[in-house]
This record gives sequence, structure tokens and C-alpha cells, in this order.
Amino acid sequence: MQRITIQSPAIAAPRFRYSPCVRIGDTVQLSGMIALDAASGELVAGGPGAEAAAILRSLQRALPDYGVSLDELLIARIYTTRLDLFGEINAAWEAVFMPGVIPPARTSVGVSALPLGASVEIEFTFVQAVQP
Amino acid sequence: MQRITIQSPAIAAPRFRYSPCVRIGDTVQLSGMIALDAASGELVAGGPGAEAAAILRSLQRALPDYGVSLDELLIARIYTTRLDLFGEINAAWEAVFMPGVIPPARTSVGVSALPLGASVEIEFTFVQAVQP
Amino acid sequence: MQRITIQSPAIAAPRFRYSPCVRIGDTVQLSGMIALDAASGELVAGGPGAEAAAILRSLQRALPDYGVSLDELLIARIYTTRLDLFGEINAAWEAVFMPGVIPPARTSVGVSALPLGASVEIEFTFVQAVQP
Repeated sequence: MQRITIQSPAIAAPRFRYSPCVRIGDTVQLSGMIALDAASGELVAGGPGAEAAAILRSLQRALPDYGVSLDELLIARIYTTRLDLFGEINAAWEAVFMPGVIPPARTSVGVSALPLGASVEIEFTFVQAVQP
Repeated sequence: MQRITIQSPAIAAPRFRYSPCVRIGDTVQLSGMIALDAASGELVAGGPGAEAAAILRSLQRALPDYGVSLDELLIARIYTTRLDLFGEINAAWEAVFMPGVIPPARTSVGVSALPLGASVEIEFTFVQAVQP
Repeated sequence: MQRITIQSPAIAAPRFRYSPCVRIGDTVQLSGMIALDAASGELVAGGPGAEAAAILRSLQRALPDYGVSLDELLIARIYTTRLDLFGEINAAWEAVFMPGVIPPARTSVGVSALPLGASVEIEFTFVQAVQP
């Protein structure tokens, strides 16, 4: 068991020195994601709902590269500067975690500022469900 | 090893699509908890101290259902909109983690808003201390 | 496997009842650290950059006691009341996670207040990279 970092073309290249995805053993930890377009690296327009949807779309595109599935998602931590518009964020969430899909744990917090002027940041932690 | 979600009647039913408690292998991850009365689903009155006490009381009631104990608590993350009243929150904490009880790691952060107008949210992560 | 707490003289004694470092199995979880001088227990002066540098210096001094290395760092969560000065914080970060050093995952969030008037708090999670 050793630490590995995993790149995905679905995720915008980091602007700073951090790893977007780190695996150690069964744990796959993602850095907090904001709604950056993978190609342009620019923040997606449209506010909290559009940003949350873009983050979840990027996540789903990256999952094959990261080697985990939504069934192995332990927790999502949602940080937003617009908790007053949480309904928008939650609608994007429920488009992915729809009835029939077992959702992970989730923590939602209203914060004062996010990198690059984002209004939503989500951090995902997976633990690989290895069959015995 | 696979992901399981665990319900407890001590915890108010989620208003959104998330799982209050998720276990994968040795890790038991709770969603951020606010001070909701388990029966009514309403936020407990009385401010940060009362909310922190209610969260910790709910946690302790749910532990048997979740299959973990306070001895297996890795970390508590406390988010509060009233960091100026942290003394109240900490008093509720110390009523549980009293002298003689080894406390977990803890991270405390002042935030701008919390769901449902709460002034305190606490997220708990347990790792099961399996005997070798 | 059981929970152990680890003390380091490089880390200021807790003012409250929490454990600065908790190990359960392969996971080593630190409490959120602010820039407290280990000897005096006072907050380091100089603003976000100086605080981030002091936190990272304390971390590096404590690592031998904690029994982990930066190669086993899964994620750092940075909370700051001065996200507008994130460049200062990041400069301190890059002085440690310099080219050639593989960085961990990282989540950065702007918050409204931190304990003891700090402008930066960082929480570190390690998973021990045991060789098979």
C-alpha cells in the first residue's frame, strides 16, 4: 500500500500545488472541487445550481479514471457562499442521487468566500468497497 | 466489505437525499448534524450551547444503532455561526468528554450560515477499533 | 487495532478537551491547527502567510512524534478568514510542497471566524502507507 495521485482529463488542471485525487489503500480522497470547465479552466457561469451541476458532472466523468464509483462515496462536503440558494444546489444533487440511488453522507455549510469567486465547492471522500 | 447506510430513530429523518450514517469497512461516517428534535424535526431552541448539547445527546442515543462508541471517535468537526459564543458550545462538549474520557481530534470553524438557521453543526467520523 | 492519542512537544498544549493527534489503525487524524507558538501558546504575529508558515513548521516538527511523513498526507483542509490573501498562504504551502514533492489533496475555504482570532487553520489527515 502506498500513496498514489491520479489525474483525469475531466478535471481542470490545478492552478496550485495540490493533487486533485489521492489514493492510499482503500481511501480515495478528492480535493475540494469548484465548477471549473475542464478545457478552459474558467468558472462555469449561472450561479450555485449551475456550479453544483457542473461539479457533479465533472466528478462523474472522472470516476472511471479515479477507479471508484458513486456506490463507494462515503461523504460529500458542500461549502457554499449562497446557502440561501441551497435549493438550487440540492436540485442538482438530486438529479444525480435520485430515488433508487443510495446517497452518501453529506455535510452542508455556508461560508464567506471560495476560491476564484466560486459559490459552491464540494469535497468528496470515497472508500473502496472491496469484496471480501 | 461494502457500503451500508444505517438508520437510527434517535436522529431526525433527513429532509434531503443524504444518508445520516454510512459505514464502509472500519469507517463510520456521519453527516453533519444540526440540533433537530428527533420527533418533531424542528430545530432545538436556546442557542449554541443548547444546540451543541442536543447534537451530542442525539449522537449518544444513536451510537448503539450505528454500532460504534465514543472510544472509536476519530474526529469531530464543529461549524458555528456564533464562534463568539464558543464557550457555550465547549461547555456542552466537556459535559460529554469529561476528565477521564479521552477526547477525539476536533476542528472548530466559524461559518457564515448553517442549514435551517442552525448556529451549530457537528460532523463526526468514527473508525472502528477492531481488536487484532 | 485501537485508538491512541499522540502528544508532541512541537505542538502547543490544547486549551480545550480535544486530542491534537489521534491514530486508529492506518489513519492518523490531526485536529485543526492554528499558528500557536509551542512554547508560549500565543498566536504567531504577521498575518495569513506567517500563520500558514508557522502551522506547517509545527507540523513538520511534530511528524516524527506522530509517526507519519508528508508522503503519507492524504489531505489538508485550509480554512481562512482572509481568502483575499490566499497568495500568502499558498506561498508558505509551496515552500514545503515544492517541485519534486508530491502534494496531497487540498480543500480551501473562506470562513467568517477562527479560534483565538487566527486567520488560518489547517487540518491534516494522514493514512499510513504500509508496505505490503
